[in-house]
Amino acid sequence: MKTSDLEAVIIKKKSYLCVGLDPDIHKIPNHLNKNAEGVLEFCLQIIEKTEPFAAAFKVNTAFFECLGSEGWKAMETIFAELKKKDIYTIADAKRADIGNTSEQYAKAFFENLGADSITLAPYMGHDSIMPFLQYEEKAAILLALTSNPGHFDFEMQILENGKRLFEQVIETSMTWPRKGELMFVVGATRSEEIQNIRKICPDNFLLIPGVGAQGGSLEKISRFGINDRVGILINASRSIIYAGNGKDFGEKAAAEALDLQKQMVEFLP
Amino acid sequence: MKTSDLEAVIIKKKSYLCVGLDPDIHKIPNHLNKNAEGVLEFCLQIIEKTEPFAAAFKVNTAFFECLGSEGWKAMETIFAELKKKDIYTIADAKRADIGNTSEQYAKAFFENLGADSITLAPYMGHDSIMPFLQYEEKAAILLALTSNPGHFDFEMQILENGKRLFEQVIETSMTWPRKGELMFVVGATRSEEIQNIRKICPDNFLLIPGVGAQGGSLEKISRFGINDRVGILINASRSIIYAGNGKDFGEKAAAEALDLQKQMVEFLP
Repeated sequence: MKTSDLEAVIIKKKSYLCVGLDPDIHKIPNHLNKNAEGVLEFCLQIIEKTEPFAAAFKVNTAFFECLGSEGWKAMETIFAELKKKDIYTIADAKRADIGNTSEQYAKAFFENLGADSITLAPYMGHDSIMPFLQYEEKAAILLALTSNPGHFDFEMQILENGKRLFEQVIETSMTWPRKGELMFVVGATRSEEIQNIRKICPDNFLLIPGVGAQGGSLEKISRFGINDRVGILINASRSIIYAGNGKDFGEKAAAEALDLQKQMVEFLP
Repeated sequence: MKTSDLEAVIIKKKSYLCVGLDPDIHKIPNHLNKNAEGVLEFCLQIIEKTEPFAAAFKVNTAFFECLGSEGWKAMETIFAELKKKDIYTIADAKRADIGNTSEQYAKAFFENLGADSITLAPYMGHDSIMPFLQYEEKAAILLALTSNPGHFDFEMQILENGKRLFEQVIETSMTWPRKGELMFVVGATRSEEIQNIRKICPDNFLLIPGVGAQGGSLEKISRFGINDRVGILINASRSIIYAGNGKDFGEKAAAEALDLQKQMVEFLP
């Protein structure tokens, strides 16, 4: 699915909600097995129930890797299931390495798992990102300004040219080929920065985590972030997937997703 | 294995060589299957033959993930095999994410795979690294100055305080708790920087890739990098593991590893 297809899904579903799949075996409902099988069942239910209200799903690879090869197999099933739906998929993998290694990651996530996009750490620079941009119809989502406390350590460092590192990351990457297939992670807890970021990348999609559990405001983000093509995906993970803890956890998650989707309608262009 | 155990291994084997396992199915010898099974056979042979001359093995996760869940299973077998040997293990994974996610990565690599250490991207700051430092006897290896062309994009950016980003990464992380369990990746192609880096972190281990295929000098690195506790691991991947392409690829790899180990003897304190 290309970025333009993502736009079409958003318009059709009237939703720029991204549901984050971070299935922690200690948090999934008690009646489910505390292993890869239980995690898979949990995710498939969440997908089925919340998909009508979401434009995208974000699969957090850490929560599958911690279950070993069985966890990776569950992730394969999940991406295969998502491919059948009218949904954009994000491998939330935070990868990037030297060119010959990033090529293998691109193969893993774009070819084998079939993700439409992947999150990447920009630290190592252009040749660590380029292998992901070689794929037509796939997007690279660079970490820019994240929502965690540690974003002050390096992302907010001021460079001698007066820019902050995260601004430099966006500016520099916007000079790379196929910049149209770049998206940026911007944390919801820094919503006041979104206006400023929109000046550097007016047309690119922003993936905005941190609404819900991390406390960001949907209204502010939407007002500051939305552009002509909508251009934002707001991710909610824990507030949706752990909304219920009984056998009706899917319905509870759906209600939470629907609630966010309804709020989004009024901000859509 | 703790960092102090790594020191003991180096002294015992008179080697600070790290063999990098980046098994590309297009580069392994023709008689091996071009799948996870072939990759596993390849790696086990390389381990058996080169282990006497190496202090550490670095497992590049990308080359296993690109083979899906079968690849991950092969990686599990490889770490289990390495655990039986007198060798330090590095998961070259370049991970790091918000705290609750880094916890899962730490579980995946430290608890399940049993790696002694993991490479991490520092971009997201302290709380993305801390979960890895919670483990006694495990080390976190932060990317500092890498050997790829893209290191100029961000790592070398000068901050308003006059330091370059990679220097700030080392300095800041040296203020974190358990800083003794931090190591840093410094590319061999920037060997002249190692003297400077040693002033910021005189005691920490440096993991130095880029000798061999990427062209760095063993002599310069050793002269500039070695401290009282040796304090460096020089990684060679492609130049060792692809030294041969026939059925004797293990012996060819061993010869290459032995050659590097012999050169190392004269620089050891």
